[in-house]
Amino acid sequence: MFENEEKTNLESLGEFGLISHLTKNIKLVQKSTVKGIGDDAAVLNYEGKRTLVSTDLLLENIHFDLAYTPLKHLGYKAIQVNLSDIYAMNGTATQVTVSIGMSSKFPLEAIEELYEGIYLACGNYNVDLVGGDTSASRQGLVISVTSLGYADENDVVYRNTAETGDLICVSGDLGGAYIGLQLLEREKLVYMENPNIQPDLEGKDYIVERQLKPEARKDIIDLLQELGVKPTSMIDVSDGLASEVLHICKQSNKGAKLYEEKIPIDPMTYETAREFGLDPTVCALSGGEDYELLFTVKQADYDKIKHKMDFSIIGYITEPNEGYTLITKSGNVHELKAQGWNAFKAG
Amino acid sequence: MFENEEKTNLESLGEFGLISHLTKNIKLVQKSTVKGIGDDAAVLNYEGKRTLVSTDLLLENIHFDLAYTPLKHLGYKAIQVNLSDIYAMNGTATQVTVSIGMSSKFPLEAIEELYEGIYLACGNYNVDLVGGDTSASRQGLVISVTSLGYADENDVVYRNTAETGDLICVSGDLGGAYIGLQLLEREKLVYMENPNIQPDLEGKDYIVERQLKPEARKDIIDLLQELGVKPTSMIDVSDGLASEVLHICKQSNKGAKLYEEKIPIDPMTYETAREFGLDPTVCALSGGEDYELLFTVKQADYDKIKHKMDFSIIGYITEPNEGYTLITKSGNVHELKAQGWNAFKAG
Repeated sequence: MFENEEKTNLESLGEFGLISHLTKNIKLVQKSTVKGIGDDAAVLNYEGKRTLVSTDLLLENIHFDLAYTPLKHLGYKAIQVNLSDIYAMNGTATQVTVSIGMSSKFPLEAIEELYEGIYLACGNYNVDLVGGDTSASRQGLVISVTSLGYADENDVVYRNTAETGDLICVSGDLGGAYIGLQLLEREKLVYMENPNIQPDLEGKDYIVERQLKPEARKDIIDLLQELGVKPTSMIDVSDGLASEVLHICKQSNKGAKLYEEKIPIDPMTYETAREFGLDPTVCALSGGEDYELLFTVKQADYDKIKHKMDFSIIGYITEPNEGYTLITKSGNVHELKAQGWNAFKAG
Repeated sequence: MFENEEKTNLESLGEFGLISHLTKNIKLVQKSTVKGIGDDAAVLNYEGKRTLVSTDLLLENIHFDLAYTPLKHLGYKAIQVNLSDIYAMNGTATQVTVSIGMSSKFPLEAIEELYEGIYLACGNYNVDLVGGDTSASRQGLVISVTSLGYADENDVVYRNTAETGDLICVSGDLGGAYIGLQLLEREKLVYMENPNIQPDLEGKDYIVERQLKPEARKDIIDLLQELGVKPTSMIDVSDGLASEVLHICKQSNKGAKLYEEKIPIDPMTYETAREFGLDPTVCALSGGEDYELLFTVKQADYDKIKHKMDFSIIGYITEPNEGYTLITKSGNVHELKAQGWNAFKAG
């Protein structure tokens, strides 16, 4: 990926040299950041609000494949998937820590690309990088991100507070990240068989971007606040719609009814799924990595949200004895099952 | 390590099954933990105090060698090294998140051992496990810990606030963890050459424990508070005394004078260093992983601390133009240099 360029050796730089090189241009923007990188711990001041914290681990060849993932995109995505969890609590994301393990054979220029993506994501979302750890790894690239944020006590939205009759809503569209991954995997195989064939991603920008460069839906949190709508429960869609609906239902001790025709699927996702011989609805239900927000709202809020294009109403919460069901386009009733990604099967 | 026992397969359990199995007995003890594991993010309430956050990444064959590291000890140590950073800010550690990446070939029983150590450390230090991530890893065991805590605004102690004339103090004794590591590495080599020879660690419990099962010095933070002494600067000793003294000096724009004879070294560390043909003082200065606290106090506080056995006064802070020096037992003056561990050379 980095042929024909001058390379800087990590060993000669050392850990402290690398950290100071990578962090020398940090500008802290959050009032709540009292002290960022440079001490034993970061110091934050949330002024009486609740502190939110979430963490994710991204491992090479489990969560990403460097054969088709540009490092800048990877850095960007690592931040987004983590911020998504803070927004899913109806919070404001304000800080991240980032720990990186990488081969000492990695050139500095590669790490810089990764951090370019990290800083771009932090900049776009007004988030401060306030700490982390760097280490050699004998085991491929390791990225661990912890994000922090805050919310007023009364604004925090949990998963376990959905009520019977609440409308189930989801932002954006679903299944694109999964189909984008199928496309990238297919082109990788073609390339491995014949390195002279260039990847054919023509016209597939949207779904490739859904996979490689997701955006956490801070805009939805802002929009809901503008509309004066506080969700009754919320979760982000990382493992697929079905899995997330079941999390909300089980934790709230409720059932759910979803309508297949209401599940938002982008036309490119739909067509490409068909090309692969896949059912687009199954991709949306079980694909994962969409990083959209799934939330429930009171029926009383229907008028406030009904004309919003940024999210879809896809069903409603029921009593637990009604189970978890999907009404298909042809009117059949299916049980909703979580067949999301199993990190241990993937490994 | 786990022969002759029934094993539970991680693939069959899945990520959510594993998480719920590992976390089913969690008892939250901190008033500041509003919501622990089970949502997109943990929710914490520090009631107007400053939030502290620190993170570490531990990678197999870089930070630990499973050939001689029991998993329970490893889990314990992973928490301790991270809590140590919160204490080094003069804070109260209250929560941790733990992310684990491991081969899906690992039996559940091995992960349980690791978590036994994690929970033991959390229990001993009154810390809540409030989040994390688990994943398969194709690359050996990966452990990422983030610790959180709080402190009153006026109690936070930084690295960059040492003043000329301040006394330099260090808790406990130094070099033991490094010598313990040398011992374990030697016995590993002996074992690899002849698996019939049992490791000879007889009578070396203390230094082996310093390496495998360090304790973060919460007791020193408590003691200083009891004594009414607020350090003027503080850092934990993870990379070796010399490296940490230089961090404080450079960030405070000061110099330092240390006295070799004052550097606390345990007799077993001393003797074993000699057996290895190593200079015990060099082990203390550059060995690392002792997780003691290095701090500076005003001379006016001398009477309050002079008879305390829990820490040693090893020198004092000078003007920056006096440099960083070590006065040897024979009265020679050496420049203090950081030759601590370089994670990228180790890799």
